[in-house]
Parts: sequence; C-alpha cells; structure tokens
Amino acid sequence: MQRELLSRKAACNAHGQDSSYFLGWQEYENDPYDPISNPKGMIQMGLAENQLCFDLIETWLEKHPQAGGFKRDDGKRIFQELALFQDYHGLPAFKNALAKYMAEVRGNGVRFDPSKLVLTAGATSANEILMFCLAEPGEAFLVPTPYYPGFDRDLKWRTGVEIVPVLCSSSNGFRITRAALDAACRRAQERRLRVKGVLVTNPSNPLGTALACGEIDALLDFVSSRDDLHLVSDEIYAGAAPEGFVSVAEVAAASASTAGRVHIVCSLSKDLGLPGFRVGAIYSEDEGVVSAATKMSSFGLVSSQTQYLLAALLGDGEFTGSLTYFPIYIYIDRSTTFEAEMEIWKKIVYQVRLNISPGSSCHCDEPGWFRICFANTSEETLEIALDRLKIFIDSYQSSDTKGHNTSREFIKWVSHFSSSEFKSER
Amino acid sequence: MQRELLSRKAACNAHGQDSSYFLGWQEYENDPYDPISNPKGMIQMGLAENQLCFDLIETWLEKHPQAGGFKRDDGKRIFQELALFQDYHGLPAFKNALAKYMAEVRGNGVRFDPSKLVLTAGATSANEILMFCLAEPGEAFLVPTPYYPGFDRDLKWRTGVEIVPVLCSSSNGFRITRAALDAACRRAQERRLRVKGVLVTNPSNPLGTALACGEIDALLDFVSSRDDLHLVSDEIYAGAAPEGFVSVAEVAAASASTAGRVHIVCSLSKDLGLPGFRVGAIYSEDEGVVSAATKMSSFGLVSSQTQYLLAALLGDGEFTGSLTYFPIYIYIDRSTTFEAEMEIWKKIVYQVRLNISPGSSCHCDEPGWFRICFANTSEETLEIALDRLKIFIDSYQSSDTKGHNTSREFIKWVSHFSSSEFKSER
Repeated sequence: MQRELLSRKAACNAHGQDSSYFLGWQEYENDPYDPISNPKGMIQMGLAENQLCFDLIETWLEKHPQAGGFKRDDGKRIFQELALFQDYHGLPAFKNALAKYMAEVRGNGVRFDPSKLVLTAGATSANEILMFCLAEPGEAFLVPTPYYPGFDRDLKWRTGVEIVPVLCSSSNGFRITRAALDAACRRAQERRLRVKGVLVTNPSNPLGTALACGEIDALLDFVSSRDDLHLVSDEIYAGAAPEGFVSVAEVAAASASTAGRVHIVCSLSKDLGLPGFRVGAIYSEDEGVVSAATKMSSFGLVSSQTQYLLAALLGDGEFTGSLTYFPIYIYIDRSTTFEAEMEIWKKIVYQVRLNISPGSSCHCDEPGWFRICFANTSEETLEIALDRLKIFIDSYQSSDTKGHNTSREFIKWVSHFSSSEFKSER
Repeated sequence: MQRELLSRKAACNAHGQDSSYFLGWQEYENDPYDPISNPKGMIQMGLAENQLCFDLIETWLEKHPQAGGFKRDDGKRIFQELALFQDYHGLPAFKNALAKYMAEVRGNGVRFDPSKLVLTAGATSANEILMFCLAEPGEAFLVPTPYYPGFDRDLKWRTGVEIVPVLCSSSNGFRITRAALDAACRRAQERRLRVKGVLVTNPSNPLGTALACGEIDALLDFVSSRDDLHLVSDEIYAGAAPEGFVSVAEVAAASASTAGRVHIVCSLSKDLGLPGFRVGAIYSEDEGVVSAATKMSSFGLVSSQTQYLLAALLGDGEFTGSLTYFPIYIYIDRSTTFEAEMEIWKKIVYQVRLNISPGSSCHCDEPGWFRICFANTSEETLEIALDRLKIFIDSYQSSDTKGHNTSREFIKWVSHFSSSEFKSER
C-alpha cells in the first residue's frame, strides 16, 4: 500500500541511506563526542571538511560587522534589497568574487568568466542539475572507483541516470586510464546503457590525490572520441589539493575539440568549511548548459543574505591571500577481504567510536581501504582519536592470528599524524 | 546536434520561460522603473509579494544586531557552529519558530508539529519535491484553473509529472466543485494518465480568493474516494488571505479518512516579503513523505545563516504580533476574447510599461482576466502606475469601437485603489 501511495523514488532505498557511509554518520549524530559532556562519544572522521580557517573568518567578521548586519560599507541599509533579491543569475558582486576565488585556489592558472557560473545550493545540487541537463533517465555516466558514496544519491536518485563504475586499481595508484574507460563503456553496452560522459572528482574523494596530467589527457581524449560525451570535474576539494594539482578547467581551456563539453563543479563547503551556507556552483563553456542549469537553479538558490556576506569575504584579497590549504583526508590500505573490511569498520565505529568510511561504501574494487578525515576536529580531539586508534590497533594485532599484517598502514599513519612535524604544520 | 548533446529537459522549452508571464518579467528586468534614473521604465505589478513590512523588520534588526552578526543573545560567537551546520532536519530553533508562525498566520486554528516540517529552499522546491515523492513520471496531478504559471515548470519539468487542469468558471467565482474534479479525471483517463492527486493554492494565486469550506470538503471527499490520491495545498499566501480563509490543514486534521494524504506547502517569500532568503517548507502527517522529502531537501537546503536570523525574528512574539496582513494582488475581468486579452496585455506591457500577468498565462479557461499585484511597490510608484493605467483606459475606450464595454472593471479597480480609504488602510 505504501509503495502504491508514494512514488518508487520515495519508497525505495535508492537514496543510499543504508550504506555504511551514512550508517556511520547516523551513529555520530546519535552520540557525538564532546570533551566535557560526552568524552566517550563518537568522533567524526567521516567528514572531509576544513574547520581550520574559522579563526581567520571570525577575525574578518569582527573587522567587517556590516557584511553580516545588512549594511553597506557606507553604513546604508541593504536589508530590503537583499530580502527581495531572487534573480537566479545571482548577486553580481558575489559571482565576481567567487570567480576570482576559484582562480586563486587554482594558482591563477586559469580564469573564470562570472557569466558562465551557475550558483546552486551546494555541490549536491550542482551535480544533480548537470545530470538532469546532460543525460536522459536510463542513460549512464562513468564514475571512476573508489568514489564518494553520496553520488549514488546525488547523480541517480531523482534523475534516473545510471552510474557505470570505471574500475581502478591500487596497482597503479588508482589512476584512470583509457583502457579502464573503454572497459567501462563495454560494460555499459552489455547493460544496454548509452554513456553520456564521465564524472571525476579532482582532487579525488576518497583518494585525496590529484588527477595527473596524463589522466586528464586520457579523459579529454576519451570525451573527444564521440561528439555526445561530457566530462564533469567535481573540484570541491581544489583548495585541499596536494602538490601538483591541475584543474581540469585549465587543461580543457586549451582543448578545442572538447570545448563546451567540460563542466566544473565547485563549492565553498570544503575548502572554506562552510557547508551550512549551501554554496555550490557549475562552471561551463556551453551556453545551453549554463542557460538550462540557471533555470534549474530555481529549485535551490543560494540565500541572498549569504551571497552578500560571502561577496564581501571572498572579494577581500587580503583575506583570501591569508588562507593556506592542505589535504583534509587520506585513504589508507590494510590489504584484506571485503568481509574483514566490514568487520574492522564495525569495530572502529561501534567500539572505538570513530566515524570513518570503508572503501566498500565508495564502491572500491579492492578490499581493505578506509577514508579518514582529520581537518574537521580540533587538535585535542584528533589526539584523542589517535590514542583510541593506537589502543585498538594494539589489541587487534595481538588477536590477529591469521598473519594478515593487519595494521601496518594504520600504524604508519597514526605515527605520522602524532608526530610533532605534522602538529607544527597545523 | 545540440538536442543530442544535452538532455531533452535542457534542450526543450518545458521550463515555460516563453510564456507571457515570464516575458513580462523579462521586460521588467531589462528596463526597471526608477523614480529618478528611469521614470519611464517598467513598473513591476507581476510580483505578488508583500514589501510593506520592511520597516518593521528593519526596526527589529536595529534592536537585535546579534541575530545577523553571528552572535548569541549572550554575545558568544556562533559563526563556526552555523557554518558547519548541514543537518537536513534544520535548526530546531528555526523549525519551532516557523511552526509557531504558521499557526499564528492561520489564526491559531490549527497547530503544527515541527517534526513534521521539511525545510526547502523556497516553495518552488517544496512543490517539486512533493511531486517527486507522490507521483511517477507520466502520472498526473489535477490543478484547478486559473493557476500560477510557474507550476508548469515547478511541478512538471524535472519530475515528468503531468498537470491535468480542473476547469473552473467565473459563473460561480471559479469555485472548485466535485463535478469539475470528476470531469478532469475523465480527461486524464482519455489521456491514459493515472491521477495521483490534486494541487490547489489557498488563497488562490491568481484569484486572490480563499477556498470556501464547501470546496475543501469537496476536495477531501474526492481524495477519500480512492486510497492512492493526495491533496497538496500550497498556502504560501496564507498571511495575505482575505477574510474567511481556512487552512486546509485545519479541516484535514479532523478528517481521519485522508490522514497522511494531505500535504501543506508554506513559504516566507510572500507574507514576509523574503524571497531572496529562499525559505519554504512542506508539512505532512505522513512519515514516509516527511522522510523522503527530508532526504530530497539535500538538493536545496536553507542557509544556516538565514535559519539562525529567522529563528530569532519569528521566535519573537512581540514582532510577529505586530504584523498585519492584507491581500497583495487581485484578479480582474474585462470580458473579451483570448486574442483581445493578449492585445491588451501587450499594450500594457510594451506601451504602458506595467508588468501584469494575463489570465491565459495562468491557463484560465475564460479570456479577459489579468492578475495585478500592488503590494510590492511604494505608494508613490503605485500612484504612478494608476495614473498610467487611467490614461491608457481613456485612450483605449475612445478607440474601442467594438462596444466591448472594455474597461469597466479596470476603472472600478483603479478608482478603488486611488481612493483615500485604500491609502489610509495601507
């Protein structure tokens, strides 16, 4: 009866809420760690967000009270103007500042034209809008593994678009190759799915690595092999990129054959740690995509109050120049089976009380990988998390009679992050 | 090639951007009236929003600078907490305040449980989410005519849901009857569309009238005639309701047979005049709808910064008690043909330079109706609009040789709103 009454989308589990990724989150929400009121509670290491720049933002806010207080620099009120502003093209001042910030984060190797930006209520919405614009229900996008577990919801749930995984392997550091893309195409063909493009995360979530130039070339080469293929590069971790990061936008700008078929997704949730403000964006050279996506943004516009504040914040070169970024999560390996991976994961979530994400929730083709985020907690909390991990590893090793060499990578990782060198970096 | 490259949704015109409703808006955006810099520009009378309570909100903001400035009442900073807040259940303080406000606007005839509220980035998104939850692509919702032109975009575009109009007639004041609902069902059957429910606006946009109790009864009776039908009541103009307004929520609360199949849509865009802040909500007694809609709200959450400000504003009983509401648009008749309606509309838009909405853009079954909004301009601008209308009417009447008795209703309306009685009401 319930199935009949509600739509299949509403009644089914395609949202992915039952994946271990979301289960870990639920555990955290039910019992969040607090140093005083809940010292045995769950520590959140499943959230790849940068909480380390708040001191800079708060200092800025103290110096610029008008930006939050509905005043212009000249003291004039701007409440009414903002309250009524609902143009889906966005506040020009904010789009200009965002385009400038996007270029800065990418080392100014590429510039962005504000008129080709579409504002969305977070990258979640940006990715869904691109699927609505680029594919019919029942058509497919290729996504390299391991991939962010939320994509099963964001890309597929309401659009009816399918994901065909591009199977990557640790043997070459999970690099994307033309052979892997072609193999995914063949599997799509077997499923009778028309492929409309590839969606990658750069830097990769969960790998934490940047696409190598050779990988971007392989992707653009693949896209140019047919005239109806697109490349979506979700670059919401651009600011957290490791050395050597190159935006797909930079390489694509030089490639005439794929012009208009490369689309970039951005967000302020990760690099600036502002997920609550719901600010994402699509950048595309294709007028049709910009036009359709702008109309679709009606279903999730960014609050004008928030646009106004961030226009002032990101428009301030002194502030953005003061930011430094670093990786905010890593992906580590302990080589085992998928069953053992889940066993370890359950112990870490339910006993050690740390929310980390297992590789299987990221559709990783190989067992034994975990994503661990460390930039969203205070230094004190991170130390407690590392202490808990050390105790767990010691007890697990002594009980591990199968000789799996269980926790070598874990121990290496825990040691690195406990080191004074890492602490001083922070 | 473009059709092939992009999806049909992106390439087609189903967004409805080419309707006269949106064309009038575009004209306004290209040439907006300003008393000093553009006195011959277009005056916006196509926007049914209340811009008359800004003085109250601005006074409140002066008294409560902490609400906009990321401070608690005790002066403590709350920036970091808000920046990170992305729980799709919303800020509890905001949901409590919103539930209280929704009850107040409805004369406290019904109370709302905050746990049954789903926050969305505006009512645009709320209505689309309900369609995603309640119907499959290719299934239909009945919508009484005349209806808000944006529904062709909001309800149909991305969901694939169809609208079957319930044809209402001026002969009974466009009232919704069971006979009209049954007739619409028969037309749906002819189109081989399965009907999943009815969506109404209460008060009606564009009529400006409230549903009579008899109409709500007819709607609930219709919904209870099958166990898979829903009633969606879009009540975003509840605060602007004329005398006698009763929320569908109030009647539905007493009707066991339709429990869980009545869903209310709310917004702060109209009554409080805050469309830029993107705050809408779904209220439902059905747990499955609340759960699925909450997950779908990930694609358009409300900025936590905005939730925090509005929690303080709407939570302040002294402020909400000081608000008075009144109708913010009317629908007027000048009895003619659809061709003549478009001719008049073009003259008013392109020559008189007022953006009003023709009945045909609202799928009105009868020609000659217009929606004119008067609460979104200053008193001075409204006077200029009325002056322009008077001049137009005089010249039109003298050239109207067909004896259409063209502008009787226009003149009555212009006279009423020019009267000192109306001015003192404002």
